[in-house]
Amino acid sequence: MRFLHTADWHIGKTLNDFSLLADQQETFKQLEQVAKENAVDAIVVAGDLYDRSIPNEAAIKVLNKMLQTLNLDDHFPLLAISGNHDSATRLSTGQDWFAYRSFYLSTDLSGAFSPITIQDTQFFLLPFFGIQEVRNYFNDDTIKNVNDAMQRITIEMTKYFAPNKTHVLVAHFFAAGSKRTADSETLVEVGGLSAVATSTLAPFDYVALGHLHNRKALNDEKIKYSGSPMKFSVSEAKQEKGVWIIDTAPFNVKWVPLKPVHDIHLLKGKFADLIKDASNYSAEDFYDIELTNKERIPDVLNKLREYYPKIVSLHRTHQARQARLNFDKKRVQESPLDLLAEFYSQTLGSGMTEKQRAWAEKALTKVMKGEE
Amino acid sequence: MRFLHTADWHIGKTLNDFSLLADQQETFKQLEQVAKENAVDAIVVAGDLYDRSIPNEAAIKVLNKMLQTLNLDDHFPLLAISGNHDSATRLSTGQDWFAYRSFYLSTDLSGAFSPITIQDTQFFLLPFFGIQEVRNYFNDDTIKNVNDAMQRITIEMTKYFAPNKTHVLVAHFFAAGSKRTADSETLVEVGGLSAVATSTLAPFDYVALGHLHNRKALNDEKIKYSGSPMKFSVSEAKQEKGVWIIDTAPFNVKWVPLKPVHDIHLLKGKFADLIKDASNYSAEDFYDIELTNKERIPDVLNKLREYYPKIVSLHRTHQARQARLNFDKKRVQESPLDLLAEFYSQTLGSGMTEKQRAWAEKALTKVMKGEE
Repeated sequence: MRFLHTADWHIGKTLNDFSLLADQQETFKQLEQVAKENAVDAIVVAGDLYDRSIPNEAAIKVLNKMLQTLNLDDHFPLLAISGNHDSATRLSTGQDWFAYRSFYLSTDLSGAFSPITIQDTQFFLLPFFGIQEVRNYFNDDTIKNVNDAMQRITIEMTKYFAPNKTHVLVAHFFAAGSKRTADSETLVEVGGLSAVATSTLAPFDYVALGHLHNRKALNDEKIKYSGSPMKFSVSEAKQEKGVWIIDTAPFNVKWVPLKPVHDIHLLKGKFADLIKDASNYSAEDFYDIELTNKERIPDVLNKLREYYPKIVSLHRTHQARQARLNFDKKRVQESPLDLLAEFYSQTLGSGMTEKQRAWAEKALTKVMKGEE
Repeated sequence: MRFLHTADWHIGKTLNDFSLLADQQETFKQLEQVAKENAVDAIVVAGDLYDRSIPNEAAIKVLNKMLQTLNLDDHFPLLAISGNHDSATRLSTGQDWFAYRSFYLSTDLSGAFSPITIQDTQFFLLPFFGIQEVRNYFNDDTIKNVNDAMQRITIEMTKYFAPNKTHVLVAHFFAAGSKRTADSETLVEVGGLSAVATSTLAPFDYVALGHLHNRKALNDEKIKYSGSPMKFSVSEAKQEKGVWIIDTAPFNVKWVPLKPVHDIHLLKGKFADLIKDASNYSAEDFYDIELTNKERIPDVLNKLREYYPKIVSLHRTHQARQARLNFDKKRVQESPLDLLAEFYSQTLGSGMTEKQRAWAEKALTKVMKGEE
């Protein structure tokens, strides 16, 4: 069979104060077109359908319409899970009716062990989970971190593996590659306590992941992030967005890029040059601007907005305590705690104390669980 | 055919700070039992399924389960509309999938003109609407009030009347009886500008209404409020709750009462007597207490709560400026503005000014439309 793998739609997301809803609808049309042109047998959406647990009504209308289009109008079977940005309960509304029309939405850990079989493939739909939930489900307090939890879940899932079928996991978590070190203790540390080691996922023929927005965050033949279908932040400006098309027999993975509707540009230069170059750029696109002037220019943001109306961030090269974290591709695989620590020290000029670090870890754990 | 008429479930409602969710689930079981015992062919829910536009997750779980039980487990066709307490958009999630399983949920005016036919009956599902919405829909600015709007809607609906069918309207608004006066101008005034005259609804063989919680709020052979399935406030303490069972041929209407899970009692007496009598009452029930002692009793609410843990309101007979509005059965049919005006004057000892009255009318109109 052939399926499309996408994730992290984040319907309702804003980029600073700019609504992305219209862009999300345009991007969706491209995705629908790719699904049709490739005649896929199913579409996998690996979590974070909404950007927040209580989406606004406009976002609800848009997502409902998208799902209706793919499933009821285009007759694609849908396989979806809730991510950490979704409220599992709110997203679950209607799921029992969806299933009658081959729209399988899993929002609860208990549903992950009833695979959905389509042609030659079993899909295991694992929603985003908290560690405590897994401890409760298996009545096992020895589960200490997300990798432990995933090992336990994987063992349980393999019990339901039908022989001669392809086994696909759909999940939403932070996975860290095993290629950078041979020591398994260390490898989990690559992503901190919140990462699943790719070795844990070895029993599956393909793992369709959501959570990280950069499809290159993980480099693995059969464990893949699709990334988000469009750029959602300045840190994603240089990423190519798209979807995966997976054939199960013979196994093949194809990347299909989606075009930015309104791109995010990173511009750097002197005020006069930026204004001179403005005619080369679309007023509808988004801009992150680094201003290299040494002198202070009064009201510079508003002046620049006359040429670049959608400036989402403005930095000055020559400003003390420049509070900006430069992400590069490698850095995305560092643990959130390490990234935060570096941001802290860049911003305040000194590192976190032990106490602050402990507090930050606690807070990050909460965030990863989607608690509010 | 035979159908059950209910409305105003208000799932997630609290009585003061007490959750009613468990009581709502128990009451639902009674309703389900009535539907089964009477072997109804459909169940009508005339709006206000939720108590608020953004219900909490616990309420969402409970309502989803109820609808699933009636429709997917018990196989009852469902006919439901959004009320002024519901967010039409939020409630609408899944509706296109519901329809494939004979669960017809109407949340948009445009859907009201596609009747659902079940056996010998056409159901017109009219969600709660704002007047501006109706003006826009018909491109008609001469519509001045809800009765005008409903006249226009009724004319449109009759175009879709199939001959030899029974025509049932399901709606959620304030209807006022025509029996109290022969003058149609005055009759609309019975309920203020926010009421639909029952004469407007004459073309229908039955009108299944939601909005008012007292089924006796309107006395009409074929235009009926079901009222809420349970008591939601002290003002409803003396109302009998239940559902209507309607037979279309021959036309017959039967009232089936539902038992209060935890009743609301109105008690009045001296502190010593109230305590003496406490053993006659269930600690799980709800109490509105009027204390007749003239002397001040320190910390009296907490003392009474030792005997009546669920006191929802406490009044003192001998207290200056007693801010309590005594509803009686007739009063429910007065306009919200008149009720408010009386409450104001009872509370502050003098009537509203012209300006205040105008402001109050504007605010009430907003409230009736469900704006926030």
